[in-house]
Amino acid sequence: MTELSANKCFGGMQKVFSHSSRSTGTEMTLGLYLPPQVREGPVPLIVFLAGLTCTHENAMVKAGAQRLCADIGLAFMTPDTSPRGLELDGEHDRYDFGSGAGFYLDATEAPWAENYRMYSYVAHELPELVLTEFAEIDAGRLGLTGHSMGGHGALTIGLKNPDRFKSVSALAPIASPINCPWGQNALPRYIGDNKGVWRQYDACALIEDGHRVPEIMVDQGLNDEFMNSQLKPDLLERACSDHGQSLQMRYQEGYDHSYFFISSFLGDHLHWAADHLQAT
Amino acid sequence: MTELSANKCFGGMQKVFSHSSRSTGTEMTLGLYLPPQVREGPVPLIVFLAGLTCTHENAMVKAGAQRLCADIGLAFMTPDTSPRGLELDGEHDRYDFGSGAGFYLDATEAPWAENYRMYSYVAHELPELVLTEFAEIDAGRLGLTGHSMGGHGALTIGLKNPDRFKSVSALAPIASPINCPWGQNALPRYIGDNKGVWRQYDACALIEDGHRVPEIMVDQGLNDEFMNSQLKPDLLERACSDHGQSLQMRYQEGYDHSYFFISSFLGDHLHWAADHLQAT
Repeated sequence: MTELSANKCFGGMQKVFSHSSRSTGTEMTLGLYLPPQVREGPVPLIVFLAGLTCTHENAMVKAGAQRLCADIGLAFMTPDTSPRGLELDGEHDRYDFGSGAGFYLDATEAPWAENYRMYSYVAHELPELVLTEFAEIDAGRLGLTGHSMGGHGALTIGLKNPDRFKSVSALAPIASPINCPWGQNALPRYIGDNKGVWRQYDACALIEDGHRVPEIMVDQGLNDEFMNSQLKPDLLERACSDHGQSLQMRYQEGYDHSYFFISSFLGDHLHWAADHLQAT
Repeated sequence: MTELSANKCFGGMQKVFSHSSRSTGTEMTLGLYLPPQVREGPVPLIVFLAGLTCTHENAMVKAGAQRLCADIGLAFMTPDTSPRGLELDGEHDRYDFGSGAGFYLDATEAPWAENYRMYSYVAHELPELVLTEFAEIDAGRLGLTGHSMGGHGALTIGLKNPDRFKSVSALAPIASPINCPWGQNALPRYIGDNKGVWRQYDACALIEDGHRVPEIMVDQGLNDEFMNSQLKPDLLERACSDHGQSLQMRYQEGYDHSYFFISSFLGDHLHWAADHLQAT
């Protein structure tokens, strides 16, 4: 781990690291806020997965997480949303595919399969990194949340790894990539045309196929310009209702898809995580 | 006023406006957060003046002000730091002069005198705009704060207009432009070589020359890379002490000059403003 920056913030430290990732084969950058409570012992960690076009930096500077994490005693990690520094054919052509749009899956198709492995990166490599590199964090108390594409990541990775991530929530998640244009564009290019395989990376399909977590909380703004076309929270409600997955779906009047929405409700997600991770 | 955007945030609205400014002769952009309390009547306003290189956007997205303003019942305005859209000779050559570096003064030297009039813009035009355009704001309860060059702006404009701005504080302000390289570069180009004139735009000199506000609060990070070379809080301490200006100077161990510092202490400045403006 190379520490790129460290800024004192609300009595703790906001750091940025880069490290050589075995999942992506690239140098990955991540933000990590360590609250002042680390001086008294390891704290739980929530990983925030960001949406399309984002880097490690968006939530770190715009979500207002540090104030709340310093109150609660929670570490806050912001990974990047894709590998960087590559020049794969077509990688930088669209905002919703390739760089900034890794969709938290392990690609199997050329030329993406070698590096676009954000599922393995978040689900496996980051928890190991926490265990080996950060004595300040209790690797047994990890939670996931995220926004939009990152909400999809939090739900799918959480549903497949309930023993590793003990808290799952999402803000305006892409509820079913199988059933929206963003997913229908990205999934075949990353993982091929077999829709049975797509189901591994679709929160609704995973719930239909028996994956469970104790409970899920979702916030969705009712003025969100992507709600009906891309996010489709109704599909998540139906899958949870039909298959007995506990879900708190909170529709928020007047809120859109921006970080002004995220910052308004992130506090509830951090408290949700802290409750599930039994933060001190 | 043209409303460029409006995002619901913590129950209130974060808006961005542009308007044709008679002070600068240009179209100016500003951010304005209106807290949910405006539904019950006019609220006090704090104007946040940003530092070198910033626009209306930096504090709006990075300072975490909206959560606190929604708690307190305070409107939060973020003006730009200079005129925009001009192509004056040398305007875009340096980060610390010209665009993004208006220094909250009224220039008298060519080619700046016509447009670089940020003192008049903040001290006179914005309060009038509040009165005529925003019934949601109580124009009799205005406060000023700011960071770095904007801290200099808050102190100098506040000291010269104590009847208009009833609360003044600053985060890591340039305490004495006369006595630091940033000021020594900018002042002669904007307002000529007469150092008597410079004193109008120097918080320490204004205090020495008899200007007063009831009290000033300043936060200064002790790891701030500009503290000794540019900001010189000791000069402000001395001027206040020698001339009987009440000052709460708070040195903050380990903090630097970044928005991580600003966000950590902005809450105290908003509460300070609310107390002085008797927010409900």
